[in-house]
Amino acid sequence: MAHYKVILSYDGTNFLGFQRQSDVRTVQGEVENALNKIGWQGRNILAAGRTDSGVHASGQVIAFDLNWDHTNRDLQRALNANLPIDIAVSSAEVVRDNFHPRFDACVRHYQYQIYCREDRQPLRDRYSWKVWPDLNIDLLEAGSYHLTGTHDFAAFGTPHHSGGSTIRTIKSAVWRRDGYELAFDIQGNAFLYRMVRRIVHLMVKIGQGKVDPDKISDLLQPGIKTPVQGLAPSCGLNLVRVIYSSQ
Amino acid sequence: MAHYKVILSYDGTNFLGFQRQSDVRTVQGEVENALNKIGWQGRNILAAGRTDSGVHASGQVIAFDLNWDHTNRDLQRALNANLPIDIAVSSAEVVRDNFHPRFDACVRHYQYQIYCREDRQPLRDRYSWKVWPDLNIDLLEAGSYHLTGTHDFAAFGTPHHSGGSTIRTIKSAVWRRDGYELAFDIQGNAFLYRMVRRIVHLMVKIGQGKVDPDKISDLLQPGIKTPVQGLAPSCGLNLVRVIYSSQ
Repeated sequence: MAHYKVILSYDGTNFLGFQRQSDVRTVQGEVENALNKIGWQGRNILAAGRTDSGVHASGQVIAFDLNWDHTNRDLQRALNANLPIDIAVSSAEVVRDNFHPRFDACVRHYQYQIYCREDRQPLRDRYSWKVWPDLNIDLLEAGSYHLTGTHDFAAFGTPHHSGGSTIRTIKSAVWRRDGYELAFDIQGNAFLYRMVRRIVHLMVKIGQGKVDPDKISDLLQPGIKTPVQGLAPSCGLNLVRVIYSSQ
Repeated sequence: MAHYKVILSYDGTNFLGFQRQSDVRTVQGEVENALNKIGWQGRNILAAGRTDSGVHASGQVIAFDLNWDHTNRDLQRALNANLPIDIAVSSAEVVRDNFHPRFDACVRHYQYQIYCREDRQPLRDRYSWKVWPDLNIDLLEAGSYHLTGTHDFAAFGTPHHSGGSTIRTIKSAVWRRDGYELAFDIQGNAFLYRMVRRIVHLMVKIGQGKVDPDKISDLLQPGIKTPVQGLAPSCGLNLVRVIYSSQ
């Protein structure tokens, strides 16, 4: 029996999120089905983050114990042969027995994609949010400047367990623009429930000049206890990568 | 009554091609349904190219006659409100009465997308072809060098009407590589049936070192009458743009 760390990518469109639930299609459910087919008898895989319904991942990390007599590469191939077309394994390796993809993660990197057009773009809609009027990148940068550092993010989300801390550290929050497409890359030690989508929703109002960029700073002051209204759609969000200091 | 030129984009995944057929979902069928809802009573819209089942477009061009008392922008909005989510209009304008999107086109631009990875990438599979072993860009460029100019392309496709000419002029054929993703942009005056997908399929063998790049040149010699075997999957192909010298 060895402890495996596996990196997953998935198109979240047709999943009701990561976490297994009875009678609905989830990423965890499909991965555990594929593992069962190659002899896994565990109860639950561990995951770095439970992505919401419709959220994509190119770097979700899971871990499980498995009796496997072949190479890591063979494990990757065997899982890919048993997974549905919208999930794939991009790496599999043996790690120390007590490696935990959630508790040991030191940085999580999410990306949110937007396109600024008045009309729908069918070749973009699956992986990005259509936003109009257009966004001003200078205003977006002025807003995201306030995000980096250690703050109480209670205005942008709730802890995954009630009573948990709402303090998080954001290492970087960067907007890039290429024609009418924008990408927001945010890296932090951890994120509150729906925190990235709440931040992006407010940032879009900032980029449209409807809200002052300093609003972000106001919302990070101590004492705020309820999250702001508004949530960017899940289709634009991707869990790109999870970084560990040791495994 | 005015004659309109409209640019369409669509995600081809869930269409059995462009051309209307009874009892199946096609782009033409859906566009004509949307037009009917805003009062169009024509029989057939005209199109620059009848894309195959599964092929995408970001710049398909159609034309039709319509009684419309509002602006071009209003027509675009009205059509988008009535089209399904996988088709959208990106421009609508009045053109001369005898404008024909197919016969008047002087350049058509297709793009084919590939990614070179041993394992599936669920966030790429909808719009690109997974190819492995990896492709050598120098070999691809050596092969595509032979394509430009005026040649008999009978080895790469059949005319849309039997007995038609198989002579076509390719203005440019360029491969670009960005990490493990490749894009092939090809522009020509017109294309034979499935010509781009046949070219790409052979080019992949060239890029993998299985076929000599000069094979392309051999196949463009006069006297070849039947197309080569093998067809790149439709999901990787996109009709990007159609260019007119006058409208």
